[in-house]
Amino acid sequence: MSVYDEFIGYVKELYDLRKASDLLEWDQETYMPSGSVEGRGYVLATLSGIYHEKLTSKKMEKYLKKLEIEKDLTDEQKANAREIKRIYEKKTKVPLKLVKEIAKTSSLGTEAWARARKKSDFKIFQPYLEKMVSLKKDFAETIGYEDKAYDVLIDDFEPYTAIKDIEPVFSGLRKKLVPIVKKITESETKIDDILNQSFDVDKQKKFGIEIIKDMGFDFEHGRLDSSAHPFTSGSCDDVRLTTFKEGQGFHLFAMMHEAGHGLYEQGYKKEHYRTPMAEAISLGYHESQSRMWENLIGRSRIFWEYHYPKLQNIFPEQLKKYGLEEFYRAINIVKPSFIRVDADETTYNLHILLRYDMEKNLFDDRIDAKETPEVWSQKMEEYLGIVPENDSAGVLQDIHWSQGLFGYFPTYTLGNLYSVQLFNQAKKDMPNLDEKISNGHLLDLKKWLNKNVHEYGKLYSAKELTKKITGETLNPEHFIKYLKEKFGLIYGVTF
Amino acid sequence: MSVYDEFIGYVKELYDLRKASDLLEWDQETYMPSGSVEGRGYVLATLSGIYHEKLTSKKMEKYLKKLEIEKDLTDEQKANAREIKRIYEKKTKVPLKLVKEIAKTSSLGTEAWARARKKSDFKIFQPYLEKMVSLKKDFAETIGYEDKAYDVLIDDFEPYTAIKDIEPVFSGLRKKLVPIVKKITESETKIDDILNQSFDVDKQKKFGIEIIKDMGFDFEHGRLDSSAHPFTSGSCDDVRLTTFKEGQGFHLFAMMHEAGHGLYEQGYKKEHYRTPMAEAISLGYHESQSRMWENLIGRSRIFWEYHYPKLQNIFPEQLKKYGLEEFYRAINIVKPSFIRVDADETTYNLHILLRYDMEKNLFDDRIDAKETPEVWSQKMEEYLGIVPENDSAGVLQDIHWSQGLFGYFPTYTLGNLYSVQLFNQAKKDMPNLDEKISNGHLLDLKKWLNKNVHEYGKLYSAKELTKKITGETLNPEHFIKYLKEKFGLIYGVTF
Repeated sequence: MSVYDEFIGYVKELYDLRKASDLLEWDQETYMPSGSVEGRGYVLATLSGIYHEKLTSKKMEKYLKKLEIEKDLTDEQKANAREIKRIYEKKTKVPLKLVKEIAKTSSLGTEAWARARKKSDFKIFQPYLEKMVSLKKDFAETIGYEDKAYDVLIDDFEPYTAIKDIEPVFSGLRKKLVPIVKKITESETKIDDILNQSFDVDKQKKFGIEIIKDMGFDFEHGRLDSSAHPFTSGSCDDVRLTTFKEGQGFHLFAMMHEAGHGLYEQGYKKEHYRTPMAEAISLGYHESQSRMWENLIGRSRIFWEYHYPKLQNIFPEQLKKYGLEEFYRAINIVKPSFIRVDADETTYNLHILLRYDMEKNLFDDRIDAKETPEVWSQKMEEYLGIVPENDSAGVLQDIHWSQGLFGYFPTYTLGNLYSVQLFNQAKKDMPNLDEKISNGHLLDLKKWLNKNVHEYGKLYSAKELTKKITGETLNPEHFIKYLKEKFGLIYGVTF
Repeated sequence: MSVYDEFIGYVKELYDLRKASDLLEWDQETYMPSGSVEGRGYVLATLSGIYHEKLTSKKMEKYLKKLEIEKDLTDEQKANAREIKRIYEKKTKVPLKLVKEIAKTSSLGTEAWARARKKSDFKIFQPYLEKMVSLKKDFAETIGYEDKAYDVLIDDFEPYTAIKDIEPVFSGLRKKLVPIVKKITESETKIDDILNQSFDVDKQKKFGIEIIKDMGFDFEHGRLDSSAHPFTSGSCDDVRLTTFKEGQGFHLFAMMHEAGHGLYEQGYKKEHYRTPMAEAISLGYHESQSRMWENLIGRSRIFWEYHYPKLQNIFPEQLKKYGLEEFYRAINIVKPSFIRVDADETTYNLHILLRYDMEKNLFDDRIDAKETPEVWSQKMEEYLGIVPENDSAGVLQDIHWSQGLFGYFPTYTLGNLYSVQLFNQAKKDMPNLDEKISNGHLLDLKKWLNKNVHEYGKLYSAKELTKKITGETLNPEHFIKYLKEKFGLIYGVTF
């Protein structure tokens, strides 16, 4: 057996451990009895401890050393070795004491955050936020960086990406987005929010499953269940999506979003299962897939040309009296709002840019944790022209910071930007794609994504793959142009 | 930290690993997509490999050695150390080569058995049975024994129990059972099989859940789902039962059976979770719980005095025209049949005694694998007065031997015998138990079982606990007397 074969056999066991944890976590959100939380916690902690032990073992060290001088590796094998080395080095650098301190602060902080949000009182959360920022700074120092501490945190979610890559893109984006939103908000066009009605959860799920099947999601290697909040779990031959368990809102876009994630996870080559070559490039790239299906398809007119009559038949009481155009406009209402997860396509990224700026400044010591509510209000005013009345509608709305997830938010906007850039290329490669979609055929796009994105796993960095697919690196102009064209028409404005 | 504390912390991780595997296996039978079998196999194999590594590690060896000279252990701590040592010694004695050979033969043998059963051709299965018996003999030699090789195999399922304990009980039982069955079969009483109708699966499940709740099964720490064949999985704070996914047969007894297992698993003391003190004594004892609820309660007249009107309301078309007495007789029809899992209370144990005899003789070199179909027919004739027409209805009906599960069958009969002996004691301890049950109150029995059986976990052996609870060791007379009284009345015969 070659060194690589031994190494990859060992790596596959790491993936098996993660797959076990994935299923236990999925079960926790779907079918687990309410009283099993504590016991499940022990099981997950044990699995994660064993994973950590195996990843950072002497055995792994030896494999990685031997592979460094191994000459006859294919590009895929090199990528697998490189990616395992990447996480091995990170994990071995950070002392166990700091890992445990972060975990403990996350646990206490999340609990405090929930209390603070309920009472809309940032003061309750403040000491935990301060502690977490300080610990994450220690974390960044321990890992080490060339440029900025915050780069280390971004790299955890968006590998090989740093402030210097993001900054020019994001600052250009902000300058263009703010006036676009302003112009739309000030336009005379008023759209009737016809989705603000009650839609039966089970009927929606049934319709959603049909759409997801049309998208090419493979139910022989996946499922759709229900949970409090939708998520995607698992990978390769077993990918599980969820939709909302309760609530009468319109959940189809959330289902298409999760199915977009699911197609990525189902799209790796079978020969690469249980290795980094069967894993997504980055969270940003993952989000590009979900957002493409949710927004570029799900909120497009061409998609609904085919599907709206079906939807009307399922919900005649709610929709029979409204035509396609009214529906299309209703699913694309632009309205600056306080809560990120409710934001529309034009305002969403401004919510992210605000968080990105704040995180960057927190880790650059230019602002302090205690100043975040105030800075939040200033930025909301500056970006969206509105000011939250309390902390719950402002700095306390997201769980991320309480869990130490700094550097995560930027991946949402990267996803939105990648989605349009990739989709434009797909349309170039398949000139009849629009026509296909308007006839209900979604599989061409899925196959294009399989071939151009999914099947490469972690072979390339996001930067390399974007260049390879579209001929240029990340360019926010695609997204801006898309917004202007789409919302210019809907709101009857020119930019 | 004391040696014991370190040891038990390590042991708890072993239990976490098993709990993870349990959930993965539960999922495989309930919700897993059909295409995920291969990947799930890898995950389970990895977890089982890690479990084996940890159980047989140098670390464990050291703990066990140190605990041998440890003086200040409580009885519970001693039991935990004893039980872990027991499985440690077994696992470390058997060479990996033999373990793998058995696993491989099991995998190939199960596949061959399924083919053989389908074609009703024992010849297809014969070489695998021969191989498995031979490997299991090697296994027994490796472990070592005082008396008989077969003792080693029994001990895997019924710890601290050997042929010398079982033989006198089983041979006495057989002598008494055969004439009882003969007398009933020859009686003039004919019972109308009114359960041979179609009962909606979902309605049955709903009714079953009500009964299971009345039994005291805790749905905050458990669930009831559907699968191809009913089973119970998990333990302590997360116990999962299943009932039949399809088929219009009458499934309530199967649900009560699984809930009986489930109550045992939910009945351990919380302070003992993740240790042998939160595990069942033996498979026989486990089966005593399921059979008590299935047969002694579920097939009793007093239980249906309360529940039959409810059942009639759920299935009026099927049952309104039949009275309680007709129903009670129908759920207790005695009929010698070929298939064990369909057997009634009087004939069931004869199916087991046949298998026990045959296993004993196989491992005593008194019969050969190739003779099993012939011996099967002779014994069926001798015990039940019927001869299977083909191998599928005979020696090929059970999966156990193909998987090397010799020594497992006796636990079914032990369970039946224990169930009556324990239940008689419960009635002695609670003179109004019958009355309670006839009024729909099942919780008294559940609490008695918690206190007298479940909460002891593995503190005692089956022999010790039976003595402690009932004042005598296993005595088949309780069971014989129960049969004679119950079926004497139903069939109008005296024994």
